[in-house]
Amino acid sequence: MYSFRNDYSEGSHARILKALMEANLVQDEGYGEDRYCLEAIRLIKARLGRNDVDIHFISGGTQTNLIAISAFLRPHEAAIAANTGHINVHETGAIEATGHKVIAVEVNDGKLKPENLKTVLEAHSDEHMVKPKLVYISDSTEIGTIYKKRELEQLSAFCKENKLILFMDGARLGSALCSAENDLKLSDLPSLVDAFYIGGTKNGALLGEALVICQDSLKEDFRYHLKQKGALLAKGRLLGIQFLELFRDDLYFDLAKNANKMASILSEGIGKAGFKFLIHSPSNQIFPIFPNTLIQKLEKNYLFNTWEKADAEHSVIRLVTSWATQENDVNAFLEDLKKAMQ
Amino acid sequence: MYSFRNDYSEGSHARILKALMEANLVQDEGYGEDRYCLEAIRLIKARLGRNDVDIHFISGGTQTNLIAISAFLRPHEAAIAANTGHINVHETGAIEATGHKVIAVEVNDGKLKPENLKTVLEAHSDEHMVKPKLVYISDSTEIGTIYKKRELEQLSAFCKENKLILFMDGARLGSALCSAENDLKLSDLPSLVDAFYIGGTKNGALLGEALVICQDSLKEDFRYHLKQKGALLAKGRLLGIQFLELFRDDLYFDLAKNANKMASILSEGIGKAGFKFLIHSPSNQIFPIFPNTLIQKLEKNYLFNTWEKADAEHSVIRLVTSWATQENDVNAFLEDLKKAMQ
Amino acid sequence: MYSFRNDYSEGSHARILKALMEANLVQDEGYGEDRYCLEAIRLIKARLGRNDVDIHFISGGTQTNLIAISAFLRPHEAAIAANTGHINVHETGAIEATGHKVIAVEVNDGKLKPENLKTVLEAHSDEHMVKPKLVYISDSTEIGTIYKKRELEQLSAFCKENKLILFMDGARLGSALCSAENDLKLSDLPSLVDAFYIGGTKNGALLGEALVICQDSLKEDFRYHLKQKGALLAKGRLLGIQFLELFRDDLYFDLAKNANKMASILSEGIGKAGFKFLIHSPSNQIFPIFPNTLIQKLEKNYLFNTWEKADAEHSVIRLVTSWATQENDVNAFLEDLKKAMQ
Amino acid sequence: MYSFRNDYSEGSHARILKALMEANLVQDEGYGEDRYCLEAIRLIKARLGRNDVDIHFISGGTQTNLIAISAFLRPHEAAIAANTGHINVHETGAIEATGHKVIAVEVNDGKLKPENLKTVLEAHSDEHMVKPKLVYISDSTEIGTIYKKRELEQLSAFCKENKLILFMDGARLGSALCSAENDLKLSDLPSLVDAFYIGGTKNGALLGEALVICQDSLKEDFRYHLKQKGALLAKGRLLGIQFLELFRDDLYFDLAKNANKMASILSEGIGKAGFKFLIHSPSNQIFPIFPNTLIQKLEKNYLFNTWEKADAEHSVIRLVTSWATQENDVNAFLEDLKKAMQ
Repeated sequence: MYSFRNDYSEGSHARILKALMEANLVQDEGYGEDRYCLEAIRLIKARLGRNDVDIHFISGGTQTNLIAISAFLRPHEAAIAANTGHINVHETGAIEATGHKVIAVEVNDGKLKPENLKTVLEAHSDEHMVKPKLVYISDSTEIGTIYKKRELEQLSAFCKENKLILFMDGARLGSALCSAENDLKLSDLPSLVDAFYIGGTKNGALLGEALVICQDSLKEDFRYHLKQKGALLAKGRLLGIQFLELFRDDLYFDLAKNANKMASILSEGIGKAGFKFLIHSPSNQIFPIFPNTLIQKLEKNYLFNTWEKADAEHSVIRLVTSWATQENDVNAFLEDLKKAMQ
Repeated sequence: MYSFRNDYSEGSHARILKALMEANLVQDEGYGEDRYCLEAIRLIKARLGRNDVDIHFISGGTQTNLIAISAFLRPHEAAIAANTGHINVHETGAIEATGHKVIAVEVNDGKLKPENLKTVLEAHSDEHMVKPKLVYISDSTEIGTIYKKRELEQLSAFCKENKLILFMDGARLGSALCSAENDLKLSDLPSLVDAFYIGGTKNGALLGEALVICQDSLKEDFRYHLKQKGALLAKGRLLGIQFLELFRDDLYFDLAKNANKMASILSEGIGKAGFKFLIHSPSNQIFPIFPNTLIQKLEKNYLFNTWEKADAEHSVIRLVTSWATQENDVNAFLEDLKKAMQ
Repeated sequence: MYSFRNDYSEGSHARILKALMEANLVQDEGYGEDRYCLEAIRLIKARLGRNDVDIHFISGGTQTNLIAISAFLRPHEAAIAANTGHINVHETGAIEATGHKVIAVEVNDGKLKPENLKTVLEAHSDEHMVKPKLVYISDSTEIGTIYKKRELEQLSAFCKENKLILFMDGARLGSALCSAENDLKLSDLPSLVDAFYIGGTKNGALLGEALVICQDSLKEDFRYHLKQKGALLAKGRLLGIQFLELFRDDLYFDLAKNANKMASILSEGIGKAGFKFLIHSPSNQIFPIFPNTLIQKLEKNYLFNTWEKADAEHSVIRLVTSWATQENDVNAFLEDLKKAMQ
Repeated sequence: MYSFRNDYSEGSHARILKALMEANLVQDEGYGEDRYCLEAIRLIKARLGRNDVDIHFISGGTQTNLIAISAFLRPHEAAIAANTGHINVHETGAIEATGHKVIAVEVNDGKLKPENLKTVLEAHSDEHMVKPKLVYISDSTEIGTIYKKRELEQLSAFCKENKLILFMDGARLGSALCSAENDLKLSDLPSLVDAFYIGGTKNGALLGEALVICQDSLKEDFRYHLKQKGALLAKGRLLGIQFLELFRDDLYFDLAKNANKMASILSEGIGKAGFKFLIHSPSNQIFPIFPNTLIQKLEKNYLFNTWEKADAEHSVIRLVTSWATQENDVNAFLEDLKKAMQ
């Protein structure tokens, strides 16, 4: 059985384990104030070309989302998200558990546009309703689409005009930035969004997201929020060492490129075999539509998630590739697909 | 500079890193449902001699405390803790952030006794006050003391009679159970407390606590709480692999024994040198009282925390040993102490 | 200017003020434990034909909703509501502020049906999503529709089968039960829903809702929740005296009947004048669709809310009648409507 | 039986009921935007000599405390209160339920001093602990003591220097300001505290507190918080009409004076009879120490609370007088006391 179920089925890239071993017996400060975290922060700031951002390492995406959003909002303020947004569907109400409503907007492609925000703002006119204040977007999105630079610029401009905080979930930011269709640079982000994170867990780390807070007003006392929510790891170095390794050179991007390349081989092969997709997704997640009978055959050798029903006889499945996927894995799948079609 | 500041200044025991490497490219389930977690749970249950407990792996102590306590309590219920309890002083109001008051009881030795609980219950008589419902204890405590079996039995009996949930923070449970003065066994705990955890972070793991829920009524839907609080790691295997290694044989206990032995060498040496202690602490944390001038000299070569003022010219310092502390480290400290005294 | 904006534009029925005056200097217990509250509870229980329910008086609807729902749910559980549900749109995220997600279901008539619940349950399959646990319905609904007995029975049966708590917001329960089309009795409710409330504020009281908890498992410690949320009025008698007066005889129902009768006169007149309605609403709220030019004319003499746009030249307005509306008020409106149409 | 148990055993001053009757059928805006609320706000601002404060009417003290404190604080910030503070002991964890720790300081007289705050600030030094941010004081305090102007000035200066929010619970502010020993004026408060409230419930109203927000940075969006916590009464006029009547002339102060005068007659009589008090309390609550046998005799004819044990044979009781207490009530008590002593 080979799994295309997600991008966190393996451990970490070998260089990360090696780095952990080398640092293992060095004594250092706890709670993310060690030399590794400091150096990793320095490297990421250099990549961003910005020294005036704050960077914190956090174990996972849901934790990052809930800490950032609850730290950024006052009690009566709400987050706006696409209906497919991770905070809306797959975090067990983590944002609501911190007291904030998530206003979900129905969209087709996983992406929010200024007109969506405008509609929400118009519908929330007084104190009998929550005050929409933070815009949550994901890049790449939960259905594999990515934001073009122009789209993000428009969203950013709308948020600035309307005093909305723009927050980007970058659990799969590597894949987005390394997409063949991407025209955004990592260094574009600090001037476009108020905060975002660089996902490690889904791009070759054992665990860890690097939260970058760009907006000064959101920075104050952030470590208090980390501690209060249980996110200040005693051995914070575990996160620092990993990001240090990922950003020491281009490893972070190389891993994302591999994931994307594997997805694009899969995608091309499936397309050539005559199948359609739920949506065009130029990142490491693809959503082909297969006959249910075919899916049953494929399930004998592959693990993947069935995303939704397409019609009575077809379903959308999700195939995810990762830093660890190898070309022979995807070729084998394409071979098996052909056999199963006969 | 050598650090006696805490028991999480290094990475992890070498066997843990080795285990991570060996499993690294094996594909497995996410979110703690992988083979490593399952096997680690099996091993811990075997040690406990109990199959009817639920075990969950969580990244750190504060996170474990806040998830367990908020999952166990209804909104109007409160936790009782010693004034020195970690949830009362060093978690940035994590418990209150989930909506629950912590009722702090002033004690001298870090330990709660039935009479403390009785006083709290008598003072909380009606719906104008919170309802005390959960008793939070730590073993070893935040000041290095440990619970004797008889003490825990009495506390447990009182809690059962009064329908109080007894919850043990075991961030340093290894050190407690391996103390020369300890008469509790790990397998005694499930019948004495309703839930407890076995601390990994402070006993040789990179991160991780194993929460054991013994009381049936507290088990339901616990994974929802983990997810909602951001604690369900995508690569949950990271925790499982570590606990599997720690409990594959006696490694967990061996590491704790080393920490205790190093503390006891330190403690004996300091006592022989004529110094007193804040309290007798037979675990891996000791609290000698030194002249401030002596402390200044020691600070040139050693890192440690000053705990509190003793009088105008003396202070209590905290020295913590760990799985990684070596005999020559503590001997060197004792040598330097002698020199500094001259 | 006459206001059809809502059913809380005036004070209270004269008998209520009279009762307050008569009791004014009598000394009694605080916090709802006075003779008036006890007697009002006795009278309501008699009306319900049930002695085994718990009844609490609370100042307003939003407060009742947030206290009941947060008391009934565990942290990971969510409420299901119609998209028009008051908790979903007009309570400033009050439910989310207590930590719980509101799952909104798009419906046309303000009412939830078993198939809506079924869809929600199917979509929430594991611990990565909230656990739907409470079904929030309003009778009459926010758009004036009411539940037929058979509809409520079906909903109730579905909830029992699926272990869902059925909670009815009865802010306008009087109007629902006294609707010409209603076939539900007040005494039917305890066996059909787990908790509900009898709205006073919108039916002639100065303020106050009577929350009836029918399900035993939801009763425990409820006064703690009232106090914690600031709802235990020092002079709880203020609520008791009012409900005592409303239920001493048929006053509560008489007031609701007046509201409904006035709405039906309005509704009939508007229909005869050739206008359509957003929806058929046999209670004290009606939603006629008028040309925008006509609305502007009416606004010179009447206060009412514009509900939504119908098309470029028409809008839906909301007209609300109450216990205090008099026949000459509605006749005058119908007269003015005719004039404005010319 | 006559009750000295509290100052909310009766309804309201007769003029308030009369005002409610007169306004009863006037139609007006909901949610506190009616003419009565606006006029009451104008009158209170005139009394304060300040037009630049925001005033909101809220049903009760616990509700006011929890809304104000949760609106003013960010998630990691805590409130400091005297151990006797209402938020610390008698609000069922209402503040904690909004996510904030209450740091209780042991004092003898119910009052916080700058040195208490200094100690708290010094003990909370980093992000592993909550950040003390709001200072909660009560005037008069829960044990009947009052703040002298100089004391409040010192506290205020300390808070300004240390960027602490100073919040005064004025549930019994009338009694404090009308105390024979008071040298504070109502109009002094806006420059000394950041927010405070003028208690109505315990000074002759049916219910209601007038929250005055003086500090600009605390004013924004406050009505959202009121709504979210269920405090925006549909018929907000109920509160406005009452405060309008209380501040139309000196009624508010006259009522408080009566309460204080009755307490001072009681106090003098009890002192002359040879009894001591828990503390000197120049307001409407007194705390005499009586033999337990005497208390038993008095309980046959009077209702009051036993506050605490004094020694094996004596207890402290609390006697509370109010706007409704009459001179013959207190004289009768003093007579009965003499008889019971024989």
